[in-house]
Amino acid sequence: MVSTAEAMELIRRGADEIMLEEALIRKLERGRPLKIKAGFDPTAPDLHLGHTVLINKLRQFQDLGHEVMFLIGDFTAMIGDPTGKSATRPPLSRDEILENAKTYEHQVFKILDPKKTTVLFNSSWMGEMSAADMIQLSAKHTVARMLERDDFNKRYKGGQSISIHEFLYPLVQGYDSVAMKADVELGGTDQKFNLLVGRQLQEIYGQEPQVALTMPILEGLDGAQKMSKSLNNYIGITDKPDDMFGKLMSISDDLMWRYFELLSFLPLSEVNTLKADVEAGLNPRDAKVRLCMEIVERFHSREEAVRANENFIARFRKGTMPDEIPEITLCGHGSGLLITNLLKDAKLVSSTSEAMRMIKQGAVKINGARVEDKGLVCIAGSNEIYQVGKRRFARVFIENS
Amino acid sequence: MVSTAEAMELIRRGADEIMLEEALIRKLERGRPLKIKAGFDPTAPDLHLGHTVLINKLRQFQDLGHEVMFLIGDFTAMIGDPTGKSATRPPLSRDEILENAKTYEHQVFKILDPKKTTVLFNSSWMGEMSAADMIQLSAKHTVARMLERDDFNKRYKGGQSISIHEFLYPLVQGYDSVAMKADVELGGTDQKFNLLVGRQLQEIYGQEPQVALTMPILEGLDGAQKMSKSLNNYIGITDKPDDMFGKLMSISDDLMWRYFELLSFLPLSEVNTLKADVEAGLNPRDAKVRLCMEIVERFHSREEAVRANENFIARFRKGTMPDEIPEITLCGHGSGLLITNLLKDAKLVSSTSEAMRMIKQGAVKINGARVEDKGLVCIAGSNEIYQVGKRRFARVFIENS
Repeated sequence: MVSTAEAMELIRRGADEIMLEEALIRKLERGRPLKIKAGFDPTAPDLHLGHTVLINKLRQFQDLGHEVMFLIGDFTAMIGDPTGKSATRPPLSRDEILENAKTYEHQVFKILDPKKTTVLFNSSWMGEMSAADMIQLSAKHTVARMLERDDFNKRYKGGQSISIHEFLYPLVQGYDSVAMKADVELGGTDQKFNLLVGRQLQEIYGQEPQVALTMPILEGLDGAQKMSKSLNNYIGITDKPDDMFGKLMSISDDLMWRYFELLSFLPLSEVNTLKADVEAGLNPRDAKVRLCMEIVERFHSREEAVRANENFIARFRKGTMPDEIPEITLCGHGSGLLITNLLKDAKLVSSTSEAMRMIKQGAVKINGARVEDKGLVCIAGSNEIYQVGKRRFARVFIENS
Repeated sequence: MVSTAEAMELIRRGADEIMLEEALIRKLERGRPLKIKAGFDPTAPDLHLGHTVLINKLRQFQDLGHEVMFLIGDFTAMIGDPTGKSATRPPLSRDEILENAKTYEHQVFKILDPKKTTVLFNSSWMGEMSAADMIQLSAKHTVARMLERDDFNKRYKGGQSISIHEFLYPLVQGYDSVAMKADVELGGTDQKFNLLVGRQLQEIYGQEPQVALTMPILEGLDGAQKMSKSLNNYIGITDKPDDMFGKLMSISDDLMWRYFELLSFLPLSEVNTLKADVEAGLNPRDAKVRLCMEIVERFHSREEAVRANENFIARFRKGTMPDEIPEITLCGHGSGLLITNLLKDAKLVSSTSEAMRMIKQGAVKINGARVEDKGLVCIAGSNEIYQVGKRRFARVFIENS
């Protein structure tokens, strides 16, 4: 058993805000397993490392002896987009949700301990609720407070339309905490307002309010924007070992330390030792390999992590790959770029004719694989490592627009 | 059968707004009975003449062959005040609502034709509605449009709190029109926004939008503020014939014409003839008697109207009552006024000692009844006719504050 102080140190790691720390300490000191709530949208069960920041924190709570309540927000997903404006948010059927939920479980149980995890669906209580109950619930909050929420405020002031049902969703999410009697709720920083609604509602319903813990949004491989599929700066947790390893090796050193904080389970003390070692002369690439190994092992296995490392070394030939690969973003003009133009724009060659000559010589590689076709089109949205000869490298992201 | 033009003339009488007249004409010209909706709150079934303005308009629609749908808004009444702030709005039980509904029917059927009236309860469809349906419904309207409603706008800007459920009530009321397939909805001018929500929702649900017809709020006996119980400037429709007659006789001539427009069923042409007669020298009191007779007959009987008239004449002795009784408002200082002070302040006597002398002589009357007690306290909120001797009259309203 760890002390409350030790538990708090682990819980604080990487967390953005804990509202309120005193309340959390009080709950921890009772010595009983706490109910840790986290809500997930069942529409997109393809998780990437960005999503795992939160799941890792859940895992840490489990390691401290607490129970994770993995809430699938199927009630609102079954409603879809009631304004009918968004074609991309059709209502999900019960079957689709159950299938998505299975995919979720399959993925998150690579991190979470299934024995300390309860999967819940909020339709179990929200589906029983009548319109009258919904009206009663909506009376617990005011228009003014709802309009204080950052995004609502901006939209209202900017003259953008907010449908009234959007005011009801935070209340549904908050009521989930009441129904679940949650002790702690985890969410991204963008969820802060909603987590606090949960606190208020629990108080109104006579419960001890939950502690709201927000985790930061993880930066993508570019180290600038948030990790997301649409920006193609992500690592999916079902990515192949080689892809995962290669992509992670391409991140900057600064980002590596950020990923150590949020993605690694290496104790902070060891991370700090590693940092000191790098400052004292250890090649940061060696630290990065350690991170890559841990992540690939988590989602695949120890053996596959070792093999991915070997493959990586073989592909880029030991010693020839620079410690940091420059990152370049090019405009894809909608469809993509011809390989010869791309190499020139990325300054890997001085002209398109040099590009053609190098391709002919077999000196051009994408992610270590030789390019044979000088007419190859590199598609918009892709994000790969390009190599010309032994020493010229660049990671090129081709923007969609 | 009347022509559409004649029907429109009758419908327009006293109406504040008809949105849209063209649409109403189109509906009328189809020659089918229209469904005329009016919603009533089941919490206060004690009607006064102010409420009958709307009911009279419903009756006119019935006279034109249309069907009145008398909607009792029991769904929201059963919820009560969900914020728990108002002790005066406890939720009503099913039994209380049914009892109130009976009282309503008893009262309104003095005006409406029961054969052309359907009494509906919105709990029949709202009670079936789930929270999910309510969310779907709330998606049909935006926060910005809701905040355009006058009262919401004032409260929001003034920093007064608006609970979110208050945004749902206009949607419930609007959805009633969808469920009822209303052709026309009647309401007070303060209901304009809500009636228009009904139009919008019907369109969204693929129905022809209802025509919204607003009726003005009736002025009370003082001719200034709206008729209301709390201002004690009202005539209840269950008031006794003598009270009804006496109160109506005390109104100003201007107000009499207003009441003719909104409360009488005398055709407008005849009202105009009466007006011309008065201009040509007819004593306005004779016109007023005609109004009193019609109203008392409506809520009691022809015989009782005749008797009330005779009693009135007897009480104030033929010829001694002036055509117009001055109206005076005095401050009641919370509890009320001593009769002697009241008579002095109303300038019916020159001093309190004169007041005492007149009382001793039996020359002071309240509503024609002799005052015996010189220590009588006239309570705050009362509104009576005071008489000193044969010629001095005043209607005195004692303000509550």
